[in-house]
This record gives sequence, C-alpha cells and structure tokens, in this order.
Amino acid sequence: MAPVYFTPGPAQLYPTVAGHLQTALDKQVFSQSHRSQAFKDLYQRADEGLRALFQLPQDYAIYFTGSATEIWERSLQSLTAQHTFHLVNGSFSKKYLDHAKWLGRQAQVLQKPFGQGFSLAEIQVPTGTELLTITQNETSSGVCMPVGDIHALRSLFPEPLVSVDMVSGAPYAALDFSQVDMAFFSVQKGFGLPAGLGVWLVNERCREVAATLEGQQYTGGHYSIASLHDQYQQFQTPCTPNVLDIYLLTHVVEDMLAKGIDTIRQETEAKAQQVYAFLEESALFAPFVQEKAHRSPTVLVAEVMEKPAAEVISHLKAQGLVVGSGYGAFKEKQIRIANFPAVTEQEIDRLVQAMRPI
Amino acid sequence: MAPVYFTPGPAQLYPTVAGHLQTALDKQVFSQSHRSQAFKDLYQRADEGLRALFQLPQDYAIYFTGSATEIWERSLQSLTAQHTFHLVNGSFSKKYLDHAKWLGRQAQVLQKPFGQGFSLAEIQVPTGTELLTITQNETSSGVCMPVGDIHALRSLFPEPLVSVDMVSGAPYAALDFSQVDMAFFSVQKGFGLPAGLGVWLVNERCREVAATLEGQQYTGGHYSIASLHDQYQQFQTPCTPNVLDIYLLTHVVEDMLAKGIDTIRQETEAKAQQVYAFLEESALFAPFVQEKAHRSPTVLVAEVMEKPAAEVISHLKAQGLVVGSGYGAFKEKQIRIANFPAVTEQEIDRLVQAMRPI
Repeated sequence: MAPVYFTPGPAQLYPTVAGHLQTALDKQVFSQSHRSQAFKDLYQRADEGLRALFQLPQDYAIYFTGSATEIWERSLQSLTAQHTFHLVNGSFSKKYLDHAKWLGRQAQVLQKPFGQGFSLAEIQVPTGTELLTITQNETSSGVCMPVGDIHALRSLFPEPLVSVDMVSGAPYAALDFSQVDMAFFSVQKGFGLPAGLGVWLVNERCREVAATLEGQQYTGGHYSIASLHDQYQQFQTPCTPNVLDIYLLTHVVEDMLAKGIDTIRQETEAKAQQVYAFLEESALFAPFVQEKAHRSPTVLVAEVMEKPAAEVISHLKAQGLVVGSGYGAFKEKQIRIANFPAVTEQEIDRLVQAMRPI
Repeated sequence: MAPVYFTPGPAQLYPTVAGHLQTALDKQVFSQSHRSQAFKDLYQRADEGLRALFQLPQDYAIYFTGSATEIWERSLQSLTAQHTFHLVNGSFSKKYLDHAKWLGRQAQVLQKPFGQGFSLAEIQVPTGTELLTITQNETSSGVCMPVGDIHALRSLFPEPLVSVDMVSGAPYAALDFSQVDMAFFSVQKGFGLPAGLGVWLVNERCREVAATLEGQQYTGGHYSIASLHDQYQQFQTPCTPNVLDIYLLTHVVEDMLAKGIDTIRQETEAKAQQVYAFLEESALFAPFVQEKAHRSPTVLVAEVMEKPAAEVISHLKAQGLVVGSGYGAFKEKQIRIANFPAVTEQEIDRLVQAMRPI
C-alpha cells in the first residue's frame, strides 16, 4: 500500500490529480502556447471555479505567481510605500515582516510567542498603516486565527488594506472576502497539487492603491498588480506560467465544488476533532496550541513527551504514515499533521490508531 | 496520430517526459517535503547533470526560480547598482532592458532592427558598465548570436559581468561558460518540459559582486543571489520550488547526456539546415533573417509571401503539424518553427513535405 502523506506541504496529492494529469498529457495541454485561446479558456475556467469556491465578490481578480513567497514581496511592492503592520506568531508570518523590512518599509509588528494566537483586544493597528498582514494559519506552529476575528479587524481598523496569508488554510477557511482586500495561497497544501504555483486574490481597492503607487516606486515589474491585472483582463499572464498546475488546480477546484465546500469543511473539522481528542487523552502526545479557538483544523501540531519526535516519525513511517517534523527549533519535540482535503477520514483514523499504542 | 508541436515554447514535450512523470507519481515524489533528504538528493542530481551537460566550470552554482522572466529582474537586483548595457534586437532582449529601467538603472542600449543581429565591430560597451546583457537566441525574431561572438565580447570588454539569456538556445548553444558570468533558461523550450521553472547558472565573480551590494540596496529578498546561494550550499531553495519540473529536468538531462550533447547539436543543425534550405528555395516562404550566421538553429522564422500566415498555420494544423505564429506585430506575415531536441528528423521532414505543396 502506498504511504499516506500527512505532511504540511508538499502534501498528499488530491486523489483525482493523477487522472487529470494523464488527461492533460493525452491532450498535449502542456505544449499549447500560453498565448493561445486554449490557455485563455483554461484561465477563465480556473477563475470561475475559484470564484465559486471562495464566494469571491465581483470586484476580485485572480492572479498566478510562482509561489506564495513571491506574493509577500509583490503585495508589499505594489500596495505600500512606507507603513506596514504585521501580526507575527510563527515563521511564515515573520517572513512577511522580513520582506517588508528588506524593502525598506517602516514595518511595525505585534509579535506573540510561537504557539500562541492573537486576541482582538490586544491588536492596535497604528493610524497611517497602509497594509495589515495576517497569517490565517501558521504552518509552522499550528495556530490559526478564526475567520470571525479577521472580519472583526476590518471594522476595528477600516483604514489599512488587509492581506490574508491563507497558504495552509485554503480552501477550508471560510473567509468573507468582502471583509479583507487580498488573500493568497500556494497549491501544494490544501489543494493537494504539485508545488510551483501561487494564487493571489486581489480586490478593486488594492488595484486603486496600486495605481497611485505606479510610477512613484518599483512596484514589481512584470509582477506588479498593474501588470498582472493588465494581463488578467484577457486571462493572460505576464510571462509563461505553470500551466500544468493551473490545469490541475482548475480541475481539482471543480472536483471540490462537485463534492461541496460545506462537506469539505465539515469533514475537515470532524477529522481535526478526532486527532485533537486523541492528543488530549494521550500520555505521549499533547496539543501544542493551548487556546482551543486558535488550534488549526488544517495543520495540527503535537508535542511529543518522553521520546524524541524523530522516533515517532520513523515508527509511523514504517506503517506507511508520513507525518511532518516540528518546524525549525521544534524539530526534536513536535510533529505536524496536515489535515487537508486529500486525506480521508479513514486515513486519519488509521493514523490515530497507529499513534495510540506508541 | 497526436499533433507535433513546433511551437517555440511551450513546445513539444521531450519524448521521455510522460514516463518520468508516471514514475514520479508512483513514487509520490510530489508529496515529499522540499526540506527532505530526498529533495536534496534530487537537487544534487540535477546539479550534476546540468554541470555535465553545459560543461560548467567548477565555480558555477545552479539556482531554480519560477521563470526566466524572474531572472531578468533578480540578476539586475543582485548584480547592478547603476550602469547596465543591453544588446537589444527583439522583444525578449527588450524586456531585459525594460526591467533595468523599471529598477531605475541607467540602462544603455545598442538596438538593432527586428530580424538583425550584431556584428562585433559595432558593439561598444561603455566603461563603468556593471552588467552586459546578451540574448543568445531571440525567440521573437529567430536571430541568434553565435557563441564565438559572445566569447569574443569577454576579451573585448573584460570589465562588466556578462549575462546570457539562452532561454530558447539551451542546451544546443555550445556556450563556453568560462567566457561569461551567468546564463539562464526556462524549461519549456529546448528541454521539452511543462512550463514553470527558470534555471540560473551563476559564477563566483557574480557572487562576489552580489556580496558587495548586499545591505546597500534591495537585492531580491528570498531570490537574491546571496539567499539562493545560501540555500544552494545544502541543495535547498528559499521557498517551495517546482519539484515536478526539477524532477523532470533531472531525468531529461540524464537522457540527453545518454544520447550525447554532440549528437543533439548535430541533429539540431541538420534539421535546421533542412528547413532553411527549403525556405530558400520556396516561392511561398523565405527565411526572415538575412544574415546566415545570425539564423537561429533552434527557432526558425519564416516570412510568408502572398498568403496570410494564419492560413498556412491552419493548413499545417489540419495535418497535425502545429507551428507558432509570428511574434507581436509580425503575426500576420511570419511563422515560427521551433527546432528543439524533442522534435525528430522525421517530424521535421514531415513538416517540410507538408509546407512544400501549399
């Protein structure tokens, strides 16, 4: 039996990926020009599927980049001149902040210890902030910010553009896109695709700000919002994109729509609940995130007591169950379990049964 | 019979691609962490194959990006503060220049009309130039610069770093990498892979210049040469890369090495010769590039007399032969024929036989 990957990205492929890939090879999709009508039709179909899946407001546009990492940089270049504010509570939210500093922005931060989330009461976004960055799901620590809290930030702080990194939360996170201005993800997490594509969802308000900065500073060249949007209006991209991933994303999104996003969300929560319940009762494991409201349903981090985490990982791997190691300094003491849509309830059950007797 | 793609990128897939892709799916390569030993081993294997194929000097490093477009930008950010010089004779060499201007560099240019190449005698690179950019093969116009001329520029102008865009010339172009400082390509051209990966070959001299600019200006964030090299030393990448393309590239490079790069070069020249000989004798077609030494062996551009080019393209397409349209303003009057290693001598023969009676 092939191993099951519970790794937080690259992750288990969505079950329909191999079939879609074969169809695309048979149809020679990857030899077609990215300037052809066939590619425009594909982009349009991806656009329609993603709009339906995320219930995007009309004014949103969808751009493709090489990675989510690139979107940290491009969003800062196109949307900010000076003042940014970052909610940082892990390695990936920290990298968004790093990028702002590298670009010379006056980046302010509210930082919480690894494993902790934010309470609304402690967040104070300074007047004059151009961009507020939020990591909806910290892949490193397993902390999420409930979407209700993200929506509340808009009414508390209506001035800044709100950027949501939902790299390891999409498509589970039921974000109300009318309450934020942009969001982004990469496809090797919740969508279960091979890595190499970032997806950037951008509203009209962002485009208006981007237009005012155009000509005032370097906004990202071919990957500025202005350039991306100019191409997007013909369902084109500034340079040759990862057509393979766009093709697979289009089809997997349609598969998810056929299944129903509500079903996917319910299954995600049920699977997460099963794992967290086990971690709480286990003597060997414990949930790393203390605050229940901040425990991610999509990337679950467990502390391993008494044994080195590597031993647990090897033990599970021998049974065909591949979990992720803890991030960075937490490698020795934690494991990470991705609970993406590609992983079934039966597979989560197998994992919990295998963890029980360790 | 499946159509043959003579399009200049995305192009015909290399014949072994489908098999390698199936093997990778079977081995779940695309679910493996990009921080795993398995990925490091893959990167190292790609590195070894590319070194052998290009006969790279020891001091070169090999980095992966999302596209060749990105390398235009990143090379300018990491290697230049002020003065760049660009040889421009088509749309892609022009885009490298555009990027330098967007980044605020004092970019000087020697520009030739579309369809013409450069003679060494007319090139004068100003003193103080930090980076000289050369497009070895202009995908838009079908003009190449003979590698001997590129090598000669180094002795004529030893001061600037020399950057060679070999996007549609690799691996055919027998560039002597000791005579330049960096080169790059994307994989959807001569390597016959799905689009979505740029490959950047960078020598020690570039890294030394990059080190002096680090801290002085924005050098590209995660995609600065310093950051890429830091990761490269452990065969890692700054962010999750297109593992699928890296896997396919590794295996196709090994296939090419097994066949022999000399054989590939000889076949490329024989196929190009066959097409150009036909274009010269044809009443309907003519080679667009007048100067024989500047006629690209990898992207062949033909002028179409008397008929709209679209009619020729349709006629050939009906026979399962897909050629590219002319670039931009030349769409109505030209066709482009990619002569990459994925296209066999038999297929080129079929194309010429089909063009003959039009």
